Amino acid sequence: MNSNQQSKQLLVLVGSPRRDGNSAALGEAARRGAEAAGTSARLLFLDDYIQGFLPDLRHSGAPADRYAELFLEHFLPADGVLICTPVYWYGMSAQAKAFFDRSFSHYVGSGPEPEHVKARMAGKRLGLAVVSEETYPGAALGIVHQVQEYARYTHSDFVGYVHGAGNRRGEIAQDPRQPLLAAEKLGAGFFTRKYSDYRIETPRSHNVWEPPAPALRNTPGVLP
Amino acid sequence: MNSNQQSKQLLVLVGSPRRDGNSAALGEAARRGAEAAGTSARLLFLDDYIQGFLPDLRHSGAPADRYAELFLEHFLPADGVLICTPVYWYGMSAQAKAFFDRSFSHYVGSGPEPEHVKARMAGKRLGLAVVSEETYPGAALGIVHQVQEYARYTHSDFVGYVHGAGNRRGEIAQDPRQPLLAAEKLGAGFFTRKYSDYRIETPRSHNVWEPPAPALRNTPGVLP
Amino acid sequence: MNSNQQSKQLLVLVGSPRRDGNSAALGEAARRGAEAAGTSARLLFLDDYIQGFLPDLRHSGAPADRYAELFLEHFLPADGVLICTPVYWYGMSAQAKAFFDRSFSHYVGSGPEPEHVKARMAGKRLGLAVVSEETYPGAALGIVHQVQEYARYTHSDFVGYVHGAGNRRGEIAQDPRQPLLAAEKLGAGFFTRKYSDYRIETPRSHNVWEPPAPALRNTPGVLP
Amino acid sequence: MNSNQQSKQLLVLVGSPRRDGNSAALGEAARRGAEAAGTSARLLFLDDYIQGFLPDLRHSGAPADRYAELFLEHFLPADGVLICTPVYWYGMSAQAKAFFDRSFSHYVGSGPEPEHVKARMAGKRLGLAVVSEETYPGAALGIVHQVQEYARYTHSDFVGYVHGAGNRRGEIAQDPRQPLLAAEKLGAGFFTRKYSDYRIETPRSHNVWEPPAPALRNTPGVLP
Repeated sequence: MNSNQQSKQLLVLVGSPRRDGNSAALGEAARRGAEAAGTSARLLFLDDYIQGFLPDLRHSGAPADRYAELFLEHFLPADGVLICTPVYWYGMSAQAKAFFDRSFSHYVGSGPEPEHVKARMAGKRLGLAVVSEETYPGAALGIVHQVQEYARYTHSDFVGYVHGAGNRRGEIAQDPRQPLLAAEKLGAGFFTRKYSDYRIETPRSHNVWEPPAPALRNTPGVLP
Repeated sequence: MNSNQQSKQLLVLVGSPRRDGNSAALGEAARRGAEAAGTSARLLFLDDYIQGFLPDLRHSGAPADRYAELFLEHFLPADGVLICTPVYWYGMSAQAKAFFDRSFSHYVGSGPEPEHVKARMAGKRLGLAVVSEETYPGAALGIVHQVQEYARYTHSDFVGYVHGAGNRRGEIAQDPRQPLLAAEKLGAGFFTRKYSDYRIETPRSHNVWEPPAPALRNTPGVLP
Repeated sequence: MNSNQQSKQLLVLVGSPRRDGNSAALGEAARRGAEAAGTSARLLFLDDYIQGFLPDLRHSGAPADRYAELFLEHFLPADGVLICTPVYWYGMSAQAKAFFDRSFSHYVGSGPEPEHVKARMAGKRLGLAVVSEETYPGAALGIVHQVQEYARYTHSDFVGYVHGAGNRRGEIAQDPRQPLLAAEKLGAGFFTRKYSDYRIETPRSHNVWEPPAPALRNTPGVLP
Repeated sequence: MNSNQQSKQLLVLVGSPRRDGNSAALGEAARRGAEAAGTSARLLFLDDYIQGFLPDLRHSGAPADRYAELFLEHFLPADGVLICTPVYWYGMSAQAKAFFDRSFSHYVGSGPEPEHVKARMAGKRLGLAVVSEETYPGAALGIVHQVQEYARYTHSDFVGYVHGAGNRRGEIAQDPRQPLLAAEKLGAGFFTRKYSDYRIETPRSHNVWEPPAPALRNTPGVLP
């Protein structure tokens, strides 16, 4: 924990309709991890705020729901956002997808307001936590790709991905790969975890991680 | 056109909220191609039928919309389904995603009805047509993956993929890669196009395509 | 550990040219985990066996190297195979890729020998461990997809995926996501870890994981 | 054809060991299309130049083959590069992969020479043409992802992707999706085809394509 991390705001968005499901369990673990590390974190269920799809805005207005509140008061101010979703038919839930689609209403057009929205959409830290009934590693490839492209487009840092398996409410706790622990760690390190997505000219050192302190590596009389 | 193809039913589902948009143009081109080939085809807009998300069925019922009509009367009887969707944030539209998610209400549980639904979900021919503002080939990878996995899970044949670029209504007609023509051909060959997705033991001949008829290859006195 | 697991053979294949690199470290961690769990495990470096590419077999023979020994004596008899590779240009190393390509020489053609090879290629457990310099989760999507499709084609079970970051030799030990620990656990559970990749008709119970024993869940007088 | 296009150099790299195979047919179609459009184009077979893998450069030198000639005299000067490869086990051929891996020898280290190489690796136009025995659209997803990431990393424009099916030499000509025609068009438009891969702040007009000229749309007395 450091002072920088303490001032950061993490928003955990749960895209499952279940309040007591496995996606919510992952989100809650991340929230808990963040709070323990001194990061302010809030967990919201997407379908408390979103009731419908992006319409053809020429012919009808946005659905009469609380999306604007979610987007403007919670999403835009957040420094980091963790999307938690069940894997439904090898994609994120339609609730989670609508969260992305509906943002269009707020940045479309010209003028200072859309520019302001776009500026605040950019540069966040992002994470993804998914739960699938099947265990095979390829089940959620399409969702990872989608979030990675969103991150790239918005100059965001996609800092972590957690995949657990479960179907019955809460049983993700029994997944031997320990996705709840991984989610908790992701929450704890959301703003400190090293992130890199290079271009050919990016300056970098030969090592990815800081070498251990010299004293530890080279204590006289102690073999390394 | 042959008698087998004439008895097939193609359902074109458009996942864009625009009635006159580029996804609809791709769908209409495919429908036209199918009809010209003697295949019965129908185009429907998803948000005429779907107004909301899959809820937690323990706590609330499905949205009061026409999804059941769409799923039971149009989707299940169709022999082939073409999904047309704009690429929104590197995924299919939430409308299109909700089409998949909501099917859960109809096959969940045990007994003859869910078994009947699952049997009729399986074994269709599927296609995907997408429109993105950006032209880069990777933009829709996640959607292709998703449809491919859906196809595999339901023993369906994912027979064709069309990707065009456009934003302003109808301008996909100007894409020099000619996606409208590709969609028309996909519609025409939806039930006759060769499809293969092998396993190691699948028997196969050395050639993928039928060799040209011998008379054409070996006309006496004419060099091949 | 159980008697079934003890009789299994795990083959760890390292696709990096470095003997002391991070891919080898992941492979060694998995091997150690497997041995500790009573599974016989062996680690081999691919370029000790492979010196060249699959040629056009009509015009030249396979390279004069030890691929046949690797494939016939180590790979075919193994019950499980873990591929460890650096991420080079967003794909597996060419060494690792050549391992797959060269198998063609052994199953091409007809007769009892190719059939025997194909039967022994099928039905293994597979794992993938990758090391990238960059940390972003999408870096190795293409490799995961490739191994998943290989698994599907050969009726193999793709039971685990580990992704770590590192560049300097051995520094993967400092990755806070603990990929060495994940590799060790993957090795330990290679033949016991639950794996699922369903089709629509696959019978399944509502729960993915075994519920905890009733005595633990419902001890009188003890809150759950 | 315009003067800008005439001065461009297209390099077609074929990653199949077959000189008369389907990948070569795609490459030849693209080369022909480029030449017809006035673009200088050259087709090379990768395994004429590459005989081995990237080694651990601390312990051995690069293979004694013609890679340096290929990389320095053909690849670096080219304005555009089309990679043609068979789909082997859901990835590019090891020959094609080694082309990418081996570049490391030329840009590793510091000083003016690696910087010069990196500068010339960047900013090209790239294309991908693949041939698979199976027809399903997902077969080559991993390869598309890999090339897209390479393009992003090197600030290159991934302008086109062609996928055909075939196994017997030359039979791709019979694929009804007409991949040879698509490859020819890709070659013709390699340096003029519109390419976009946006970021959130990228300025853009509402339309993707130039509207038809007014005179054509609105000729007096002629219905549009």
